[in-house]
Amino acid sequence: MAFAATILTLYPEMFPGPLGISLAGRALREGRWELETVQIRDFATDRHRSVDDTPAGGGAGMVMRADVIAAALDSVAPGRPVLAMTPRGAPLTQERVRALAAGEGVTILCGRFEGIDERLFEARAIEQVSIGDYILSGGEMAALTLLDACIRLLPGVMGAPSSGVDESFETGLLEYPQYTRPAEWEGRTIPEVLRSGDHAKIEAWRRAQAETDTRLRRPDLWERHEGARVQPPSGARRRNRNDKS
Amino acid sequence: MAFAATILTLYPEMFPGPLGISLAGRALREGRWELETVQIRDFATDRHRSVDDTPAGGGAGMVMRADVIAAALDSVAPGRPVLAMTPRGAPLTQERVRALAAGEGVTILCGRFEGIDERLFEARAIEQVSIGDYILSGGEMAALTLLDACIRLLPGVMGAPSSGVDESFETGLLEYPQYTRPAEWEGRTIPEVLRSGDHAKIEAWRRAQAETDTRLRRPDLWERHEGARVQPPSGARRRNRNDKS
Repeated sequence: MAFAATILTLYPEMFPGPLGISLAGRALREGRWELETVQIRDFATDRHRSVDDTPAGGGAGMVMRADVIAAALDSVAPGRPVLAMTPRGAPLTQERVRALAAGEGVTILCGRFEGIDERLFEARAIEQVSIGDYILSGGEMAALTLLDACIRLLPGVMGAPSSGVDESFETGLLEYPQYTRPAEWEGRTIPEVLRSGDHAKIEAWRRAQAETDTRLRRPDLWERHEGARVQPPSGARRRNRNDKS
Repeated sequence: MAFAATILTLYPEMFPGPLGISLAGRALREGRWELETVQIRDFATDRHRSVDDTPAGGGAGMVMRADVIAAALDSVAPGRPVLAMTPRGAPLTQERVRALAAGEGVTILCGRFEGIDERLFEARAIEQVSIGDYILSGGEMAALTLLDACIRLLPGVMGAPSSGVDESFETGLLEYPQYTRPAEWEGRTIPEVLRSGDHAKIEAWRRAQAETDTRLRRPDLWERHEGARVQPPSGARRRNRNDKS
Protein backbone atom coordinates (compact mmCIF):
# COMPACT_ATOMS: atom_id res chain seq x y z
CA MET A 1 0.00 0.00 0.00
CA ALA A 2 1.31 3.43 -0.91
CA PHE A 3 2.24 6.01 1.74
CA ALA A 4 -0.87 8.19 2.06
CA ALA A 5 -0.71 11.85 3.09
CA THR A 6 -3.83 13.79 4.01
CA ILE A 7 -3.36 17.54 4.53
CA LEU A 8 -5.86 19.70 6.39
CA THR A 9 -5.31 23.27 5.26
CA LEU A 10 -6.88 26.57 4.26
CA TYR A 11 -4.62 26.55 1.19
CA PRO A 12 -5.03 23.19 -0.61
CA GLU A 13 -3.62 24.83 -3.76
CA MET A 14 -0.18 24.84 -2.07
CA PHE A 15 -0.05 21.03 -2.53
CA PRO A 16 1.74 19.17 -4.01
CA GLY A 17 3.60 22.37 -5.05
CA PRO A 18 7.33 21.56 -5.03
CA LEU A 19 6.49 17.92 -4.24
CA GLY A 20 4.98 17.62 -7.72
CA ILE A 21 8.47 18.10 -9.23
CA SER A 22 11.68 16.04 -9.36
CA LEU A 23 12.06 12.97 -7.09
CA ALA A 24 8.82 13.40 -5.12
CA GLY A 25 6.83 14.33 -8.23
CA ARG A 26 7.95 11.24 -10.11
CA ALA A 27 7.16 9.10 -7.05
CA LEU A 28 3.68 10.65 -6.88
CA ARG A 29 3.01 9.86 -10.53
CA GLU A 30 4.33 6.33 -10.00
CA GLY A 31 1.90 5.83 -7.12
CA ARG A 32 4.59 5.44 -4.46
CA TRP A 33 2.75 7.98 -2.34
CA GLU A 34 -0.70 9.52 -2.42
CA LEU A 35 -1.84 13.01 -1.58
CA GLU A 36 -5.25 14.22 -0.46
CA THR A 37 -6.10 17.70 0.76
CA VAL A 38 -9.01 18.68 3.00
CA GLN A 39 -10.21 22.28 2.96
CA ILE A 40 -10.75 23.18 6.62
CA ARG A 41 -13.16 25.95 5.63
CA ASP A 42 -15.61 23.32 4.35
CA PHE A 43 -16.23 22.40 8.00
CA ALA A 44 -17.23 25.88 9.15
CA THR A 45 -20.80 26.06 10.37
CA ASP A 46 -21.76 29.73 10.13
CA ARG A 47 -22.79 31.55 6.98
CA HIS A 48 -19.47 33.44 6.83
CA ARG A 49 -17.62 30.07 6.81
CA SER A 50 -15.46 31.31 9.74
CA VAL A 51 -12.54 29.14 10.80
CA ASP A 52 -11.02 31.56 13.29
CA ASP A 53 -11.92 34.11 15.94
CA THR A 54 -10.17 36.63 18.20
CA PRO A 55 -7.91 35.28 21.00
CA ALA A 56 -9.60 34.80 24.38
CA GLY A 57 -7.99 37.26 26.79
CA GLY A 58 -7.07 39.66 23.98
CA GLY A 59 -4.01 40.05 21.78
CA ALA A 60 -3.17 40.47 18.11
CA GLY A 61 -4.26 38.20 15.28
CA MET A 62 -6.75 35.35 15.12
CA VAL A 63 -6.92 31.83 16.57
CA MET A 64 -8.26 28.80 14.70
CA ARG A 65 -11.43 27.34 16.24
CA ALA A 66 -11.25 23.91 17.92
CA ASP A 67 -14.75 22.93 16.82
CA VAL A 68 -14.18 23.58 13.11
CA ILE A 69 -10.79 21.84 13.03
CA ALA A 70 -12.08 18.87 15.05
CA ALA A 71 -14.88 18.42 12.50
CA ALA A 72 -12.33 18.49 9.67
CA LEU A 73 -10.06 16.00 11.49
CA ASP A 74 -12.95 13.69 12.35
CA SER A 75 -13.78 13.47 8.63
CA VAL A 76 -10.42 11.79 7.90
CA ALA A 77 -10.14 7.99 8.09
CA PRO A 78 -8.41 7.08 11.37
CA GLY A 79 -5.38 4.79 11.77
CA ARG A 80 -2.52 7.02 10.65
CA PRO A 81 -0.58 9.36 12.95
CA VAL A 82 -2.05 12.86 13.11
CA LEU A 83 0.54 15.65 13.21
CA ALA A 84 0.02 19.37 13.70
CA MET A 85 2.81 21.60 12.44
CA THR A 86 3.40 24.25 15.10
CA PRO A 87 6.38 26.06 16.64
CA ARG A 88 5.15 24.77 20.03
CA GLY A 89 5.73 21.18 18.91
CA ALA A 90 8.54 18.69 19.40
CA PRO A 91 11.48 19.32 17.06
CA LEU A 92 11.36 17.05 14.02
CA THR A 93 14.23 14.55 13.88
CA GLN A 94 15.50 12.21 11.19
CA GLU A 95 14.54 9.34 13.51
CA ARG A 96 10.88 10.49 13.54
CA VAL A 97 10.97 10.99 9.76
CA ARG A 98 12.26 7.45 9.29
CA ALA A 99 9.52 6.01 11.54
CA LEU A 100 6.81 7.95 9.70
CA ALA A 101 8.14 6.87 6.29
CA ALA A 102 8.03 3.22 7.43
CA GLY A 103 4.33 3.57 8.27
CA GLU A 104 1.15 3.80 6.21
CA GLY A 105 1.17 7.55 5.91
CA VAL A 106 0.32 10.65 7.87
CA THR A 107 -2.47 13.16 8.43
CA ILE A 108 -1.11 16.70 8.76
CA LEU A 109 -2.94 19.66 10.21
CA CYS A 110 -1.61 23.02 9.02
CA GLY A 111 -2.18 25.87 11.48
CA ARG A 112 -2.38 29.52 10.45
CA PHE A 113 -2.64 32.86 12.20
CA GLU A 114 -1.73 32.89 15.93
CA GLY A 115 -2.31 29.14 16.27
CA ILE A 116 -5.06 26.68 17.14
CA ASP A 117 -7.35 26.62 20.19
CA GLU A 118 -5.44 24.53 22.74
CA ARG A 119 -8.51 22.47 23.65
CA LEU A 120 -8.18 20.65 20.32
CA PHE A 121 -4.89 19.11 21.51
CA GLU A 122 -6.48 18.02 24.78
CA ALA A 123 -9.46 16.45 23.03
CA ARG A 124 -7.78 14.64 20.13
CA ALA A 125 -4.62 12.51 19.79
CA ILE A 126 -2.45 14.95 17.88
CA GLU A 127 1.34 15.00 17.77
CA GLN A 128 2.59 18.59 17.72
CA VAL A 129 5.71 18.89 15.57
CA SER A 130 8.04 21.80 14.83
CA ILE A 131 10.46 21.77 11.87
CA GLY A 132 12.70 24.40 13.49
CA ASP A 133 13.00 27.36 15.84
CA TYR A 134 11.62 30.02 13.51
CA ILE A 135 8.14 31.22 12.61
CA LEU A 136 6.46 30.48 9.28
CA SER A 137 3.38 32.07 7.75
CA GLY A 138 1.56 28.79 8.35
CA GLY A 139 1.93 25.05 8.73
CA GLU A 140 1.81 24.41 4.98
CA MET A 141 5.52 24.95 4.34
CA ALA A 142 6.32 22.79 7.37
CA ALA A 143 4.03 20.04 6.04
CA LEU A 144 5.73 20.16 2.62
CA THR A 145 9.13 19.93 4.34
CA LEU A 146 8.09 16.97 6.49
CA LEU A 147 6.63 15.17 3.48
CA ASP A 148 9.75 15.81 1.38
CA ALA A 149 11.87 14.22 4.13
CA CYS A 150 9.56 11.19 4.32
CA ILE A 151 9.02 10.64 0.60
CA ARG A 152 12.70 10.35 -0.30
CA LEU A 153 12.90 7.39 2.11
CA LEU A 154 10.01 5.45 0.53
CA PRO A 155 10.99 2.25 -1.30
CA GLY A 156 12.06 2.92 -4.89
CA VAL A 157 12.22 6.72 -4.58
CA MET A 158 15.95 7.35 -4.14
CA GLY A 159 18.23 6.22 -6.94
CA ALA A 160 20.84 4.29 -4.98
CA PRO A 161 19.46 2.29 -2.05
CA SER A 162 22.68 2.89 -0.12
CA SER A 163 22.14 6.66 -0.18
CA GLY A 164 21.09 7.76 3.27
CA VAL A 165 23.31 5.58 5.43
CA ASP A 166 26.25 7.99 5.64
CA GLU A 167 24.13 11.10 5.77
CA SER A 168 24.01 13.77 8.44
CA PHE A 169 22.07 12.79 11.60
CA GLU A 170 21.77 9.11 10.65
CA THR A 171 24.81 8.38 12.81
CA GLY A 172 24.18 11.22 15.24
CA LEU A 173 26.92 13.19 13.46
CA LEU A 174 27.03 15.66 10.60
CA GLU A 175 28.07 14.11 7.32
CA TYR A 176 31.75 14.28 6.35
CA PRO A 177 32.73 16.83 3.65
CA GLN A 178 32.45 15.73 0.04
CA TYR A 179 34.75 16.33 -2.94
CA THR A 180 34.56 15.51 -6.62
CA ARG A 181 36.27 16.36 -9.90
CA PRO A 182 38.08 18.47 -11.01
CA ALA A 183 41.10 17.22 -9.00
CA GLU A 184 42.37 20.78 -8.82
CA TRP A 185 40.18 23.88 -8.81
CA GLU A 186 41.36 27.46 -8.20
CA GLY A 187 44.58 26.02 -6.82
CA ARG A 188 42.72 23.82 -4.33
CA THR A 189 43.21 20.06 -4.46
CA ILE A 190 41.12 17.16 -3.20
CA PRO A 191 42.55 15.79 0.11
CA GLU A 192 45.30 13.28 -0.69
CA VAL A 193 43.74 10.42 1.32
CA LEU A 194 40.62 10.43 -0.88
CA ARG A 195 42.79 9.68 -3.91
CA SER A 196 44.74 6.89 -2.13
CA GLY A 197 42.36 4.06 -2.96
CA ASP A 198 42.88 2.79 0.61
CA HIS A 199 39.31 2.23 1.73
CA ALA A 200 40.07 1.72 5.44
CA LYS A 201 42.09 4.93 5.52
CA ILE A 202 39.34 6.81 3.66
CA GLU A 203 36.72 5.59 6.09
CA ALA A 204 38.83 6.58 9.10
CA TRP A 205 39.45 10.04 7.61
CA ARG A 206 35.76 10.58 6.90
CA ARG A 207 34.83 9.47 10.41
CA ALA A 208 37.39 11.86 11.95
CA GLN A 209 36.12 14.74 9.73
CA ALA A 210 32.50 14.04 10.68
CA GLU A 211 33.46 14.07 14.36
CA THR A 212 35.50 17.28 14.10
CA ASP A 213 32.84 19.11 12.11
CA THR A 214 30.08 18.03 14.50
CA ARG A 215 32.13 19.09 17.54
CA LEU A 216 32.92 22.51 16.06
CA ARG A 217 29.66 23.29 14.28
CA ARG A 218 27.09 21.55 16.43
CA PRO A 219 28.25 21.21 20.03
CA ASP A 220 24.64 20.28 20.93
CA LEU A 221 24.67 17.21 18.63
CA TRP A 222 28.18 16.32 19.75
CA GLU A 223 27.22 16.38 23.42
CA ARG A 224 24.24 14.08 22.76
CA HIS A 225 26.45 11.79 20.66
CA GLU A 226 29.12 11.56 23.36
CA GLY A 227 26.47 11.15 26.06
CA ALA A 228 24.99 8.17 24.20
CA ARG A 229 28.44 6.67 23.80
CA VAL A 230 29.54 6.80 27.46
CA GLN A 231 26.11 5.89 28.90
CA PRO A 232 26.14 2.30 30.24
CA PRO A 233 23.49 0.03 28.65
CA SER A 234 20.18 0.18 30.52
CA GLY A 235 20.53 -3.50 31.50
CA ALA A 236 23.77 -2.78 33.34
CA ARG A 237 22.10 0.06 35.22
CA ARG A 238 19.16 -2.07 36.27
CA ARG A 239 21.44 -4.76 37.74
CA ASN A 240 22.92 -2.31 40.22
CA ARG A 241 20.43 0.10 41.64
CA ASN A 242 23.06 1.81 43.79
CA ASP A 243 25.20 2.69 40.81
CA LYS A 244 25.92 6.42 41.07
CA SER A 245 27.15 6.84 37.49
CA MET B 1 14.00 48.81 -2.24
CA ALA B 2 12.21 45.48 -2.19
CA PHE B 3 13.73 42.41 -0.55
CA ALA B 4 15.39 40.53 -3.42
CA ALA B 5 15.83 36.75 -3.41
CA THR B 6 18.03 35.00 -5.94
CA ILE B 7 17.84 31.19 -5.95
CA LEU B 8 20.50 29.00 -7.54
CA THR B 9 18.91 25.64 -8.26
CA LEU B 10 18.53 22.75 -10.67
CA TYR B 11 14.74 23.09 -10.26
CA PRO B 12 13.76 26.73 -10.91
CA GLU B 13 10.19 25.54 -11.56
CA MET B 14 9.86 24.90 -7.79
CA PHE B 15 9.79 28.68 -7.23
CA PRO B 16 7.78 30.59 -6.13
CA GLY B 17 5.63 27.45 -5.61
CA PRO B 18 3.79 27.86 -2.29
CA LEU B 19 5.26 31.37 -1.97
CA GLY B 20 3.12 32.43 -4.93
CA ILE B 21 -0.02 31.88 -2.80
CA SER B 22 -1.57 33.61 0.24
CA LEU B 23 0.46 36.18 2.21
CA ALA B 24 3.76 35.74 0.36
CA GLY B 25 2.05 35.56 -3.05
CA ARG B 26 0.19 38.81 -2.49
CA ALA B 27 3.40 40.45 -1.25
CA LEU B 28 5.20 39.24 -4.39
CA ARG B 29 2.53 40.73 -6.65
CA GLU B 30 2.65 43.97 -4.64
CA GLY B 31 6.41 44.18 -5.21
CA ARG B 32 7.32 43.84 -1.53
CA TRP B 33 9.81 41.15 -2.47
CA GLU B 34 11.38 40.01 -5.74
CA LEU B 35 12.33 36.55 -6.89
CA GLU B 36 14.91 35.51 -9.45
CA THR B 37 16.04 31.96 -10.18
CA VAL B 38 19.35 30.91 -11.72
CA GLN B 39 19.56 27.50 -13.39
CA ILE B 40 22.87 26.05 -12.20
CA ARG B 41 22.99 23.74 -15.23
CA ASP B 42 23.44 26.80 -17.48
CA PHE B 43 26.95 27.10 -16.05
CA ALA B 44 28.09 23.59 -16.91
CA THR B 45 30.96 23.55 -19.39
CA ASP B 46 30.87 20.09 -20.96
CA ARG B 47 28.56 18.97 -23.73
CA HIS B 48 26.51 16.84 -21.30
CA ARG B 49 25.87 19.94 -19.15
CA SER B 50 27.13 18.01 -16.09
CA VAL B 51 26.74 19.66 -12.70
CA ASP B 52 27.85 16.69 -10.58
CA ASP B 53 30.32 13.83 -10.49
CA THR B 54 31.09 10.78 -8.33
CA PRO B 55 32.43 11.37 -4.77
CA ALA B 56 36.22 11.42 -4.45
CA GLY B 57 37.19 8.41 -2.33
CA GLY B 58 34.09 6.48 -3.35
CA GLY B 59 30.60 6.17 -1.91
CA ALA B 60 27.00 6.35 -3.08
CA GLY B 61 25.40 9.18 -5.02
CA MET B 62 26.83 12.23 -6.72
CA VAL B 63 28.50 15.44 -5.53
CA MET B 64 27.90 18.88 -7.06
CA ARG B 65 30.98 20.35 -8.74
CA ALA B 66 32.66 23.38 -7.16
CA ASP B 67 33.63 24.89 -10.52
CA VAL B 68 30.11 24.85 -11.97
CA ILE B 69 28.48 26.23 -8.83
CA ALA B 70 31.15 28.91 -8.41
CA ALA B 71 30.47 30.07 -11.97
CA ALA B 72 26.75 30.26 -11.22
CA LEU B 73 27.37 32.15 -7.95
CA ASP B 74 29.83 34.55 -9.58
CA SER B 75 27.11 35.49 -12.10
CA VAL B 76 24.93 36.93 -9.30
CA ALA B 77 25.35 40.60 -8.32
CA PRO B 78 27.33 40.74 -5.05
CA GLY B 79 26.33 42.61 -1.89
CA ARG B 80 23.69 40.35 -0.38
CA PRO B 81 24.41 37.45 2.02
CA VAL B 82 24.94 34.14 0.22
CA LEU B 83 23.41 31.13 1.98
CA ALA B 84 23.73 27.46 1.14
CA MET B 85 20.99 25.22 2.50
CA THR B 86 22.70 22.10 3.86
CA PRO B 87 22.29 19.77 6.86
CA ARG B 88 25.94 20.55 7.70
CA GLY B 89 25.03 24.21 8.26
CA ALA B 90 24.25 26.27 11.34
CA PRO B 91 20.67 25.78 12.58
CA LEU B 92 18.37 28.55 11.36
CA THR B 93 17.02 30.74 14.17
CA GLN B 94 14.32 33.39 14.33
CA GLU B 95 17.08 35.88 15.16
CA ARG B 96 18.86 35.10 11.87
CA VAL B 97 15.55 35.27 9.98
CA ARG B 98 14.85 38.69 11.47
CA ALA B 99 18.32 39.97 10.50
CA LEU B 100 17.96 38.67 6.93
CA ALA B 101 14.47 40.19 6.57
CA ALA B 102 15.86 43.57 7.69
CA GLY B 103 18.46 43.45 4.89
CA GLU B 104 18.32 43.91 1.12
CA GLY B 105 17.70 40.27 0.34
CA VAL B 106 19.49 36.99 0.03
CA THR B 107 21.15 34.71 -2.50
CA ILE B 108 20.38 31.06 -1.79
CA LEU B 109 22.26 28.07 -3.16
CA CYS B 110 20.23 24.86 -3.20
CA GLY B 111 22.33 21.71 -2.98
CA ARG B 112 21.18 18.33 -4.30
CA PHE B 113 22.49 14.76 -4.21
CA GLU B 114 25.18 14.02 -1.60
CA GLY B 115 26.14 17.68 -1.28
CA ILE B 116 28.55 20.20 -2.76
CA ASP B 117 32.32 19.96 -3.20
CA GLU B 118 33.70 21.36 0.06
CA ARG B 119 36.27 23.53 -1.75
CA LEU B 120 33.45 25.86 -2.79
CA PHE B 121 32.92 26.84 0.87
CA GLU B 122 36.64 27.48 1.32
CA ALA B 123 36.85 29.63 -1.81
CA ARG B 124 33.69 31.76 -1.51
CA ALA B 125 31.99 33.58 1.39
CA ILE B 126 28.99 31.30 1.87
CA GLU B 127 26.95 30.89 5.05
CA GLN B 128 25.91 27.26 5.47
CA VAL B 129 22.43 27.04 6.99
CA SER B 130 20.30 24.09 8.12
CA ILE B 131 16.55 24.40 8.71
CA GLY B 132 16.52 21.31 10.96
CA ASP B 133 18.06 17.96 11.87
CA TYR B 134 16.51 15.90 9.07
CA ILE B 135 17.43 15.24 5.45
CA LEU B 136 15.52 16.72 2.50
CA SER B 137 15.68 15.73 -1.15
CA GLY B 138 17.45 19.02 -1.83
CA GLY B 139 17.95 22.57 -0.69
CA GLU B 140 14.89 23.86 -2.53
CA MET B 141 12.37 23.09 0.23
CA ALA B 142 14.74 24.59 2.78
CA ALA B 143 15.07 27.74 0.65
CA LEU B 144 11.27 28.05 0.39
CA THR B 145 11.01 27.64 4.17
CA LEU B 146 13.66 30.26 4.86
CA LEU B 147 12.03 32.71 2.45
CA ASP B 148 8.58 32.13 3.95
CA ALA B 149 9.98 33.00 7.40
CA CYS B 150 11.63 36.17 6.06
CA ILE B 151 8.81 37.41 3.85
CA ARG B 152 6.18 37.49 6.59
CA LEU B 153 8.41 39.95 8.47
CA LEU B 154 8.76 42.41 5.57
CA PRO B 155 7.01 45.77 6.04
CA GLY B 156 3.35 45.63 5.06
CA VAL B 157 3.13 41.85 4.68
CA MET B 158 1.51 40.79 7.98
CA GLY B 159 -1.94 42.17 8.72
CA ALA B 160 -1.41 43.44 12.26
CA PRO B 161 1.98 45.04 12.89
CA SER B 162 1.90 43.77 16.49
CA SER B 163 1.78 40.14 15.32
CA GLY B 164 5.15 38.59 15.93
CA VAL B 165 6.06 40.13 19.26
CA ASP B 166 4.50 37.43 21.46
CA GLU B 167 5.40 34.56 19.17
CA SER B 168 7.46 31.49 19.93
CA PHE B 169 11.25 32.10 20.02
CA GLU B 170 10.93 35.91 19.93
CA THR B 171 11.27 35.95 23.72
CA GLY B 172 13.39 32.79 23.90
CA LEU B 173 10.27 30.89 25.01
CA LEU B 174 7.52 28.96 23.25
CA GLU B 175 4.36 30.95 22.78
CA TYR B 176 1.59 30.57 25.40
CA PRO B 177 -1.44 28.44 24.47
CA GLN B 178 -4.27 30.17 22.64
CA TYR B 179 -8.05 29.88 23.03
CA THR B 180 -11.00 31.34 21.18
CA ARG B 181 -14.77 30.91 20.86
CA PRO B 182 -16.84 28.88 21.49
CA ALA B 183 -16.57 29.45 25.26
CA GLU B 184 -17.41 25.79 25.82
CA TRP B 185 -16.57 22.97 23.41
CA GLU B 186 -17.01 19.24 24.08
CA GLY B 187 -17.37 20.09 27.77
CA ARG B 188 -14.07 22.00 27.81
CA THR B 189 -14.05 25.66 28.80
CA ILE B 190 -11.61 28.48 28.17
CA PRO B 191 -9.42 29.10 31.27
CA GLU B 192 -11.26 31.44 33.66
CA VAL B 193 -8.46 34.01 33.82
CA LEU B 194 -8.72 34.72 30.08
CA ARG B 195 -12.34 35.75 30.57
CA SER B 196 -11.56 37.97 33.57
CA GLY B 197 -10.76 41.14 31.64
CA ASP B 198 -7.87 41.72 34.07
CA HIS B 199 -5.01 42.42 31.67
CA ALA B 200 -2.21 42.23 34.25
CA LYS B 201 -3.48 38.84 35.45
CA ILE B 202 -3.85 37.60 31.86
CA GLU B 203 -0.32 38.66 31.04
CA ALA B 204 1.07 36.93 34.15
CA TRP B 205 -0.85 33.74 33.34
CA ARG B 206 0.40 33.71 29.76
CA ARG B 207 3.96 34.28 30.87
CA ALA B 208 3.73 31.42 33.40
CA GLN B 209 2.20 29.11 30.74
CA ALA B 210 4.93 29.98 28.24
CA GLU B 211 7.58 29.21 30.87
CA THR B 212 5.99 25.92 31.92
CA ASP B 213 5.49 24.73 28.35
CA THR B 214 9.04 25.66 27.38
CA ARG B 215 10.48 23.88 30.44
CA LEU B 216 8.49 20.71 29.79
CA ARG B 217 8.56 20.57 25.98
CA ARG B 218 11.89 22.18 25.17
CA PRO B 219 14.39 21.78 28.01
CA ASP B 220 17.10 22.88 25.54
CA LEU B 221 15.42 26.27 24.95
CA TRP B 222 14.65 26.61 28.66
CA GLU B 223 18.27 26.01 29.64
CA ARG B 224 19.44 28.68 27.19
CA HIS B 225 16.75 31.07 28.42
CA GLU B 226 17.69 30.56 32.07
CA GLY B 227 21.38 30.80 31.23
CA ALA B 228 20.81 34.17 29.58
CA ARG B 229 18.80 35.35 32.58
CA VAL B 230 21.31 34.51 35.33
CA GLN B 231 24.33 35.69 33.31
CA PRO B 232 25.48 39.11 34.61
CA PRO B 233 25.57 41.82 31.93
CA SER B 234 28.90 41.90 30.10
CA GLY B 235 29.60 45.41 31.44
CA ALA B 236 29.36 44.13 35.01
CA ARG B 237 31.73 41.29 34.18
CA ARG B 238 34.27 43.61 32.68
CA ARG B 239 34.29 45.83 35.74
CA ASN B 240 35.35 43.02 38.05
CA ARG B 241 37.71 40.56 36.44
CA ASN B 242 37.87 38.42 39.56
CA ASP B 243 34.13 37.86 39.65
CA LYS B 244 33.65 34.10 40.00
CA SER B 245 29.92 34.07 39.18
